[in-house]
Amino acid sequence: MIMFRSHTMMNSRRWMSTKMQICHDIASFRQARANVHKGLTVGYVPTMGGLHEGHISLIQQARKQCDVVVSSVFVNPAQFGPNEDFDKYPRTFDADMAKLGENGVDIVFVPQTKDMYLPEHRVYVDPVGFDDVPEGKCRPGFFRGVATVVTKLFNIVAPTHAFFGQKDAVQCVVIKRIIEDLNFPIELKVLKTKREENGLAMSTRNQYLSPAERTASAVIYAGLKSAQDLFKNATTSSIPAATLRDNIESIYRSEPLLNDIQYISIASKETMDELTDVDTTAGAIISVAVKVGNCRLIDNIGL
Amino acid sequence: MIMFRSHTMMNSRRWMSTKMQICHDIASFRQARANVHKGLTVGYVPTMGGLHEGHISLIQQARKQCDVVVSSVFVNPAQFGPNEDFDKYPRTFDADMAKLGENGVDIVFVPQTKDMYLPEHRVYVDPVGFDDVPEGKCRPGFFRGVATVVTKLFNIVAPTHAFFGQKDAVQCVVIKRIIEDLNFPIELKVLKTKREENGLAMSTRNQYLSPAERTASAVIYAGLKSAQDLFKNATTSSIPAATLRDNIESIYRSEPLLNDIQYISIASKETMDELTDVDTTAGAIISVAVKVGNCRLIDNIGL
Repeated sequence: MIMFRSHTMMNSRRWMSTKMQICHDIASFRQARANVHKGLTVGYVPTMGGLHEGHISLIQQARKQCDVVVSSVFVNPAQFGPNEDFDKYPRTFDADMAKLGENGVDIVFVPQTKDMYLPEHRVYVDPVGFDDVPEGKCRPGFFRGVATVVTKLFNIVAPTHAFFGQKDAVQCVVIKRIIEDLNFPIELKVLKTKREENGLAMSTRNQYLSPAERTASAVIYAGLKSAQDLFKNATTSSIPAATLRDNIESIYRSEPLLNDIQYISIASKETMDELTDVDTTAGAIISVAVKVGNCRLIDNIGL
Repeated sequence: MIMFRSHTMMNSRRWMSTKMQICHDIASFRQARANVHKGLTVGYVPTMGGLHEGHISLIQQARKQCDVVVSSVFVNPAQFGPNEDFDKYPRTFDADMAKLGENGVDIVFVPQTKDMYLPEHRVYVDPVGFDDVPEGKCRPGFFRGVATVVTKLFNIVAPTHAFFGQKDAVQCVVIKRIIEDLNFPIELKVLKTKREENGLAMSTRNQYLSPAERTASAVIYAGLKSAQDLFKNATTSSIPAATLRDNIESIYRSEPLLNDIQYISIASKETMDELTDVDTTAGAIISVAVKVGNCRLIDNIGL
């Protein structure tokens, strides 16, 4: 059994955890969770595995801010479209467990698909309207799949705090709406995107890139930064979204290995509704999806 | 502050509750809920008010089976259609509070609509397929409204046990699916329908009936019982659903005040899928919706 002691009582950041507990089914996870004393904070970092420094930074923040840290590794079939990469999505269990253990995770939940989706499963959590934002149009049903599994995981893990990365911008808005609309007693922490030295946003799917493609992918963030600079230097009270979009598009078109621009979205930070003009006080979020080689990459920047 | 003592320690059924705590908003409810010691069982009876003996029997069972009893009164707009009776649905707050207090409820949650549905609300819980069962076809969106509010209330109340009446047969199946599919750590208790002396299933909407209509409504359960007798006396391994349906229909047609048969459904107990033949070992559930005067009434019986 893991022993947890109160943050305040101990005045220390690390809990007395003999070692990380790995729970392969819901019942054993619930048992481990029940051993956590009432009143302790529980930070939760859900993942699909294939862990990189982005995930680790979330874990480290959870470790800093919470008494107990829980993570999960579950490649959720409900959020993959029929032509997407569910089968080839990187599964690196042993390396993932090592990284989680080294970074002070107390309990990790690694359920099996058959336990998460019973044959008679038919209840889904539907974040209405998110299939109409550009990322939703590219991946119909994706946000419903995310919302459903996150609701399930929240009910199993029962965290007090949940940590997500800003890289998945729309997902963060969806999670915020789930927490508020379904009244989860959970504090959402959105942490900034971790990047490679060349600016490429860290992602499990970056493994699909060849070395040349990885170098070329630096253009994605470079384009976003350029639009951010344009915005910062604006002397008017608003700037047309088209101006920002054209700027990014011209930069992306200059990179031959970037072979498809799926969208350049300029939207409200709160609702992800598309904007025609960006108010220089209110700001916006620019999100993009592109293909480099066969790899679909997304990124975003706040204005 | 309410004091709760452990069932087992006290070997007593009633908790040391100075008086029932009425919470009008989510924050004050959460505070009251946080005072309940970890490990105590919390029985929950959600209601829309207009309390009758059916509700009271649920409260009494929760009182018998659980350490702490929570109820709520909330007329949920999301489960009423545009032409339904949301505005005239009976609201009897003072009488409801008196009944809940007398029957040993510890905490009652009576939220306001504006706090339950924020202007930016857009996440709904969708029990896929239930709009296609007869009750769902009569009330499109009803089960989505029920599933959404029940999920919200479960997240606020955080019960260990939830009590529902069998009168709303499909709703009970939907709740079961929500609990299983979204992994709520809640034990569902479905209690049998309370009836008037003449067999009429108790319902808040019975208040809409004139005395003559109330008397005539006895035919609803009489028809169901007749079909149950037919089923019990069957000597074959299965009985056609049509035989049972015709039996009920002929009885309903004999009552002039019953002026509309919306459906007579003969369905699987697990999935509520319609059956052509009822296996005499597996059984089924017969559900009906009829109109007596202007009042829509539902009832059901298990085979």
